[in-house]
Amino acid sequence: MTVKLFVNARCFTPIDPGRPLSGNDQGMIREIPRSAILTQDGRILQIGPEPEVLEAVRHLSPDQEIDCGGHCVIPGFVDPHTHLCFHGLRESEFSMRLEGIPYLEILRRGGGILSSVKRVRAATEEELFKSTQQLAQSALAHGTTTIEIKSGYGLETQAELKMLRVIDRVGRQSPLDVVPTFMGAHAIPEEFAGDSEGFVEMIIHEMLPEVATQGIARFCDVFCEEGVFSIAQSRRILEAARALGFGIKIHADEVHDLGGAGLAASVGALSAEHLLAASDEGLKAMAAAGTIAVLLPATAYSLGKPFARGREMIRLGVPVALATDCNPGSCFCESIPFVFGLAVLGMKLSPEEALTATTLNAAYAVGQAKSCGSLEPGKKADFLILEGQTPAILAYHAGGSPVKAVYKGAERVV
Amino acid sequence: MTVKLFVNARCFTPIDPGRPLSGNDQGMIREIPRSAILTQDGRILQIGPEPEVLEAVRHLSPDQEIDCGGHCVIPGFVDPHTHLCFHGLRESEFSMRLEGIPYLEILRRGGGILSSVKRVRAATEEELFKSTQQLAQSALAHGTTTIEIKSGYGLETQAELKMLRVIDRVGRQSPLDVVPTFMGAHAIPEEFAGDSEGFVEMIIHEMLPEVATQGIARFCDVFCEEGVFSIAQSRRILEAARALGFGIKIHADEVHDLGGAGLAASVGALSAEHLLAASDEGLKAMAAAGTIAVLLPATAYSLGKPFARGREMIRLGVPVALATDCNPGSCFCESIPFVFGLAVLGMKLSPEEALTATTLNAAYAVGQAKSCGSLEPGKKADFLILEGQTPAILAYHAGGSPVKAVYKGAERVV
Repeated sequence: MTVKLFVNARCFTPIDPGRPLSGNDQGMIREIPRSAILTQDGRILQIGPEPEVLEAVRHLSPDQEIDCGGHCVIPGFVDPHTHLCFHGLRESEFSMRLEGIPYLEILRRGGGILSSVKRVRAATEEELFKSTQQLAQSALAHGTTTIEIKSGYGLETQAELKMLRVIDRVGRQSPLDVVPTFMGAHAIPEEFAGDSEGFVEMIIHEMLPEVATQGIARFCDVFCEEGVFSIAQSRRILEAARALGFGIKIHADEVHDLGGAGLAASVGALSAEHLLAASDEGLKAMAAAGTIAVLLPATAYSLGKPFARGREMIRLGVPVALATDCNPGSCFCESIPFVFGLAVLGMKLSPEEALTATTLNAAYAVGQAKSCGSLEPGKKADFLILEGQTPAILAYHAGGSPVKAVYKGAERVV
Repeated sequence: MTVKLFVNARCFTPIDPGRPLSGNDQGMIREIPRSAILTQDGRILQIGPEPEVLEAVRHLSPDQEIDCGGHCVIPGFVDPHTHLCFHGLRESEFSMRLEGIPYLEILRRGGGILSSVKRVRAATEEELFKSTQQLAQSALAHGTTTIEIKSGYGLETQAELKMLRVIDRVGRQSPLDVVPTFMGAHAIPEEFAGDSEGFVEMIIHEMLPEVATQGIARFCDVFCEEGVFSIAQSRRILEAARALGFGIKIHADEVHDLGGAGLAASVGALSAEHLLAASDEGLKAMAAAGTIAVLLPATAYSLGKPFARGREMIRLGVPVALATDCNPGSCFCESIPFVFGLAVLGMKLSPEEALTATTLNAAYAVGQAKSCGSLEPGKKADFLILEGQTPAILAYHAGGSPVKAVYKGAERVV
C-alpha cells in the first residue's frame, strides 16, 4: 500500500453528478485555492482544503509528500477521439491542399486516406507500434492521460486486427489508459470501389464478429458522410455492433448535414463527432437523448473551416466534449492544450466549459468516467500541474504547453 | 579552430540578395535534398550537395561529424518583435477579457499595460532577469536563435535602463543573440496622465540621450495609436532617436488607421509592426520605401481579431516578416512555430513565404542579416532540425513544435 500526499495545490475540477455536464452545468468548476490530495495505490482517497486533508492524514503515514508549489492542478486530459495509430506523415498532401489542389487530384497523386491504408497494411506490427507509441508519448507530454484510439486504416480484417493489437499494446506499454475503437467503416477500400454495400456486409459479417470474439475494442465508430457510409448503412453497422456488445459512436455531419446527429440520438450512440454541419433539429435530438457532442476544433483550424457551433450546443443542452482528432490527413495534432485554446478563443467556450469538455465530459464520451475525468475520491489520481494560477492559462499561453508535470495513478510520468 | 561537418541534411533556406525578399521573391527557397554544412568556429564555411562539400573537406579534418538523419534543416528563427522582458503574468485580465469586460473596466481593476509597468518598476533586477531568461529559454526551445526584446514597461528613465540592462544580460547569459530596442514610448505613465506632451519631452530630452550614452539599445520603437502617441509625437520621437544613431521602428495602424504605415515609410523606419488597419496607400508607401512589415498573427489570434493582410502586402511588394509579439497582455506566446502555422493557415502565406518571413526578412527587420537569417557561407551556423521532410511541417503539425534540435553557432543548444 502506497500513500502519497500532495499539498499546496490550487485545484480546479468538475464534480461528477453521474452523467456528463450540460447547459449551465458545463461551466461549473470546483476551485479549492489551497488544497491537498491524498492518494492510495494510485487512487484518490481524499481531496479538499489542506487543513481538512492534513487532519485526516494524521492516522495514515504518507510514504511521500509532494509540494505542488501553489500551482494550478487539474484532472488529466481525456482525449476521446483520435486516429493516432498510423504509419507515415502526409506532409506533401498538406502542401498540395494549401496550393488549392482539389482532393480528387490529391487522391490521383496517391494521397488521401487510402494512402494511409496502404502504409498501415504494409507496415509490420512492430513499425506500427513504434510510430503509434511515439505519438502517444507526445500526447502524454501535453497532458493526456486517457486516450481513445480508432482503427480504420486497415479496412480488411487482418489489418484492422493488427491495428487493434497495436492500440492494445500502447495501452499496456505506456502510462496512458487507452480506449480502443473499431472503425472498419472509415472509408471504402479500393477492393470495394463502387460496392460500398459489399464492404458493409463484410464489416457486419466478418470484421465485427471477429473483433468481438477477440475482445479488443470497446466501441464501434462509423464515418457517416456523402461518398462514405450513408445513414442507412451507418445504422445497420451500428445496430450490428450494439448487438455484439460494442458501445457506439458516429462521425456525423462533418461536411454535409445528412442527419447524422439525429441518427446518433436515435440509435443511442454515446457520442456524435465533428458536427460542423449539424442542424438545430439534430442537436435538439442529441440534447434530448443525452448524446455527447465530441468537437474537434483543431481539424477545422487545419482545414481552414469555421468551427462547430460549440456555444450553441451548450445553450441547447448538449453535453460538449473536445478532442484532437489526431490523424495524418486533416489534423496532425496531439495537443489538448492547443484544442483548449481554439475552443476558448475560436468557439467562445469559457475556460471552465473547456475544462469540463477536456476532462469529465470527455471521460463520459469514452465510458471512463467511473475512473477518471475529475478529481474525486475513488477515481484514479491522474492530474496535471500547470504553470499558471487558473485553467485559463491553457488558452492564455498561446502556442505553448503550460503542462509542467503529469501524474498518472499518482506517479509522475512527465 | 573547430571544424564541424553536418551531413545527411535536407536543407531549405532563402538566399540573401543583400536586401529583404519581397513580392514573388518572398517565396523563393533553395532546397538541397541531400546536403552537408561545413562550419568553422561557429560560422558556415560551405553548404551544398553532400558530394561537393565532402570534396572540399578532404583538405580539412573536421573535429566532429554530425548526421542530420535526412531531416529537414532550416535557418534558426529570428523573432523580430517581442516584449519578453516583464514580471508576472496577466492571466486574470485575460479571463476578464473573455467575459467581455471592457478594457477601461479592466484598467480600473488594476489590469492593462500599466499593471505590468507597476510590477516591472517594483521588481529587482535579478527577479526581472530570471523571468525574462526563462521565457527566452523557452523561445530558444521553440527554435528562436536571434530575438529582439523591447523595453517599455519602465516608462521612467531608471526603470527603462534596468530593463535594457536585463535584456543585455540575457544576450550574454543565454545562447540567444539578443537585439535590444528602447521603447519608452510604449504608453503614457500615470505620472503624465493628461500630459502626453510632457512625457514626449522627457523621452526626447532625458531618456533617449541617456540610453544613447549607455549604448544599450540599437533601435527605438514607438506605439503610434489613438490614446497613446500621435503621428506628430511619434515623428518627433523617431527623428530624435535617428539623430542619436538609433535604428527606428514603429507600432503602426494596429487598431486605427492613423497613417502609421505612411509615417514609417516617410521617416525611413526599418520596419512597421502590426498593421491590422493599414490602408493600401500606407502599404504602397512602405513597398516604395522598402519598409519591412512585421506581422504578429498570434496577437490577432489571442484578441480574436482578423489577421493583418499578409497576402495583400506580399502582392503589393512589401517585404513581410513574422514575430511573436510575446507580451503578458495581448499575446502570451513565445513560439515561432505557432506563428508560422497561423501565417500559413490564417493569413494564407505559403510555407516558403512564411519561412522567409521567420528567417531572412526577420533578420533584416532587426539589422542582423549580415550574420544570420539564411544558411550561407559567412553567416553564423544557426539552424534547426525539424521532424518532417519540408518546412510545411511547421504548419502541418498543429499545436506542437516540430523543432527537434537547435544549433547556435554550430553548437547544439536544445
